[in-house]
Amino acid sequence: MHTDLVAALDIGGTKIAGALVDGHGEILVRAQRATPAQENGDIVMGAVEEVVGELTASPLWGRATAFGIGSAGPVDASAGTVSPVNVPGWRDYPLVRRVQEAAGGLPVELIGDGVAITAAEHWQGAARGHDNALCMVVSTGVGGGLVLNGQLHPGPTGNAGHIGHISVDLDGDLCPCGSRGCVERIASGPNIARRAIENGWRPGPDGDASAAAVAAAALAGDPVAVASFERAAQALAAGIAATATLVEIDIAVIGGGVGKAGDVLFTPLRKALGDYATLSFVQRLEITPAQMGTDAGLVGAAAAALARRADAAAV
Amino acid sequence: MHTDLVAALDIGGTKIAGALVDGHGEILVRAQRATPAQENGDIVMGAVEEVVGELTASPLWGRATAFGIGSAGPVDASAGTVSPVNVPGWRDYPLVRRVQEAAGGLPVELIGDGVAITAAEHWQGAARGHDNALCMVVSTGVGGGLVLNGQLHPGPTGNAGHIGHISVDLDGDLCPCGSRGCVERIASGPNIARRAIENGWRPGPDGDASAAAVAAAALAGDPVAVASFERAAQALAAGIAATATLVEIDIAVIGGGVGKAGDVLFTPLRKALGDYATLSFVQRLEITPAQMGTDAGLVGAAAAALARRADAAAV
Repeated sequence: MHTDLVAALDIGGTKIAGALVDGHGEILVRAQRATPAQENGDIVMGAVEEVVGELTASPLWGRATAFGIGSAGPVDASAGTVSPVNVPGWRDYPLVRRVQEAAGGLPVELIGDGVAITAAEHWQGAARGHDNALCMVVSTGVGGGLVLNGQLHPGPTGNAGHIGHISVDLDGDLCPCGSRGCVERIASGPNIARRAIENGWRPGPDGDASAAAVAAAALAGDPVAVASFERAAQALAAGIAATATLVEIDIAVIGGGVGKAGDVLFTPLRKALGDYATLSFVQRLEITPAQMGTDAGLVGAAAAALARRADAAAV
Repeated sequence: MHTDLVAALDIGGTKIAGALVDGHGEILVRAQRATPAQENGDIVMGAVEEVVGELTASPLWGRATAFGIGSAGPVDASAGTVSPVNVPGWRDYPLVRRVQEAAGGLPVELIGDGVAITAAEHWQGAARGHDNALCMVVSTGVGGGLVLNGQLHPGPTGNAGHIGHISVDLDGDLCPCGSRGCVERIASGPNIARRAIENGWRPGPDGDASAAAVAAAALAGDPVAVASFERAAQALAAGIAATATLVEIDIAVIGGGVGKAGDVLFTPLRKALGDYATLSFVQRLEITPAQMGTDAGLVGAAAAALARRADAAAV
């Protein structure tokens, strides 16, 4: 068993990464292409097939017994299709069937990218040993995934844990998703920067108006920058508290570019969590930075494939 | 196996109900006492022991193989204790051990009352056949529970599904729980009535200022009464959409006194759900009234005990 491998794909709006991964989460073979995100669906699939082709050409390929895919969402695991917001050529695109054809018929497990990074943090990272966890990416968008009762909880369509699009401000600003006051609409990097600028913060001589620049200004004591991070922290805290109150989690892991702001984010976040996580059973909730790096998506897709293989073996 | 029974307790702030229940959910023996809610903990336990005593005195008792308890919360299933808000004499009260002693050592399963009604709706009611469901009680408070992957999801402490205390208005009114803008703070019966009165609605000659009276006024076309229900519906919709976005449910079942308002609640609720449940994987979410009556808590506690027995048998 331990010599078996799984294949993994991490499909995003910027790059398509592939790997062969062993049972310890070690990446033995890698392949990568840029995502031709604005091209038609066949061209995007062509890039995926090139990545898969490099994997199948590896002398290790024969040991691969399952294929895990983490993809930008929304995905539909029940239909085997994907409709990534940032890849307009793919709408209800039959990715699972196409990858299966390219990979010689291996069983394929599809999950959303937030679910994939959660699988990785649970297997190898900050959520290891926790049976009930929320893992988040706070970056250009806000995504996430759940571990419940010791198992990844992708949900029937592979999209569960989509904390960026729960409303914490029911009369709030319209979100591009169509709802109002979503966590992402308040706490994503672009919204942190937008709010700072709206309230009078100005970029330095380098013109950098990113959330990272706002974080640097906050660290230097700029009150408008501090306030923008505090507002983001408040929205994240309300969303994390809601998740804990609904499903009982004992840890929330936060990664992504905004997560890298460190104490500028985590200090007001832990404070705000005290305001929203009030019921006895959610008061011990821990908040911690993510530990997985840029391979989180690949490692998580591999974890999902391994879990599926284990389930199949148990039947 | 089919001749086995389970014992069940439904412990609330008003009454303590007990039953022996068969594998089809039929109640064969009943016992009940008023809850001496303002008395000390031993007196409250005395009432529980009287109920359990009636069950153990039944000629059918010998067939009981497990005991399920649904209790007003918060509960702590991992510690076997309860701290019901409306029973001040019980704080971290070791209910599981005390019931086990009174019941001759039967295995005892403890869940919160929202989880219990969910177990009942899933077993016998409106959520039957649904693998991923939210069941709610909208009444003096707002409670709930979850079914995920075909199984009840009580969470480690038995409190999961506490939708009444997720914040959907992070800058909103303070809630007695300590948080702000909770679903319950906007959508419970007393808050529907309070808001109607604040905005100029007046009770009729009978002086009835309950949410049911506001519902009757809304049905008769009173715009302030209609608006108060619409606001409650908006908060419920935001909470239900958040739940679906986080864990993927395909049905939300709504019971309790406010749920009985019928179209006065359900019409604006279904409309508001369209505003908040925007992602592709939550758009087909169904909202439906509860089907179980006043025995829901007992039947649900029995279901939890049966599930535990089945788990034990599978080990």
